[in-house]
Amino acid sequence: MAVTLYGLPTSSSTGRVLTTLLEKEVSDFKFQHVDLSNGAHKKPSFLSMQPFGLIPVLQDGDLTLFESRAISRYIALKYENQGTPLYGRNMKEKAYVEQWLEVESQNFHPSASALVYQLSSRPKKGLKPEEEVVKQNVEKLERVLDVYEAQLSRNPYLAGDFFSLADLSHLPRTKSLIHSANIPHLFTARENVHKWWERISTRPSWEKVMEMASV
Amino acid sequence: MAVTLYGLPTSSSTGRVLTTLLEKEVSDFKFQHVDLSNGAHKKPSFLSMQPFGLIPVLQDGDLTLFESRAISRYIALKYENQGTPLYGRNMKEKAYVEQWLEVESQNFHPSASALVYQLSSRPKKGLKPEEEVVKQNVEKLERVLDVYEAQLSRNPYLAGDFFSLADLSHLPRTKSLIHSANIPHLFTARENVHKWWERISTRPSWEKVMEMASV
Repeated sequence: MAVTLYGLPTSSSTGRVLTTLLEKEVSDFKFQHVDLSNGAHKKPSFLSMQPFGLIPVLQDGDLTLFESRAISRYIALKYENQGTPLYGRNMKEKAYVEQWLEVESQNFHPSASALVYQLSSRPKKGLKPEEEVVKQNVEKLERVLDVYEAQLSRNPYLAGDFFSLADLSHLPRTKSLIHSANIPHLFTARENVHKWWERISTRPSWEKVMEMASV
Repeated sequence: MAVTLYGLPTSSSTGRVLTTLLEKEVSDFKFQHVDLSNGAHKKPSFLSMQPFGLIPVLQDGDLTLFESRAISRYIALKYENQGTPLYGRNMKEKAYVEQWLEVESQNFHPSASALVYQLSSRPKKGLKPEEEVVKQNVEKLERVLDVYEAQLSRNPYLAGDFFSLADLSHLPRTKSLIHSANIPHLFTARENVHKWWERISTRPSWEKVMEMASV
């Protein structure tokens, strides 16, 4: 039975799951657009699947799952014998994947999201960015990227010599930081971070997700 | 070979990992106190293990791992055939454990940490809590706990009928919210959340960690 993903290709959390499905060569999934503009995500039928009213949601038979990183982990596990080995090849590599996935979730994501909100979402609403909030979050993000720079000087990918769920998980927000928040220099100023971004953002899976988002 | 955990029993992240080790009946681990008061976590020898200068860190042979939720996942996997089945009994249960672990990390933890900082850490430094920040985070946390209340009215634990890594991961911060931030009513006001807290906070593993923290 095919899995169904509810979401929007332009949402960063949905993009994370879509990229995972494509990397795992799950070709027969159904994609169900959720129309946020008419509040479809706040209606009882959607809230019965996702009590916080957020996208994406995955349905696989009688399993209904939310939280994009949890969905991606499930897909990586269910389809472990096909596509890209997103958890690596053994328990040690898997441990490192989980470590960098947590760094993404706990350290990278909060500052990255705050900056996308300040530098992209607020201006779209006619509001100015709050300078002090921007400054603090740029500093936090730079500290994270300095650690990445050191790690990526030793390995082509965060968890080692293989592309993993940890790298993948950074794609949507980094794209927004570079293109919507317009702060590419945080990445290009760091040689190994820059090469890593070139490496992961040119993967066919992500290019396909970008194409879905631009339609 | 025994695993070594570097941390402090009073730190909530260290408490998460210690509880996981005890639930998995890993009795021969070594515990290495990290003296934050003399800046041991910012010295080169520690930074070579944990580039952000944070506790805890796990060493297991040539594996050096940080991020408490990643360490806990590694322990749950490495010792999957002993102790409490913290990931459940099959792929579907594991998916739900990951989902609620992500809810803890993305939804519960940010507000909970902000409130512990505002209502416990700031007063200890002679600073008043910032009223607006407290108000916003109480509202956010109440929305999360409302979802928990509904979920826990159907199941004794977050991911189903079994105690999992998702419940475990809530122990340290919830304890701080109740005892240090002094807002137990957020939990006691919700019948099923309250029963859940009684259920998980009386586990021998957690009682032992509390004992280690009070020495």
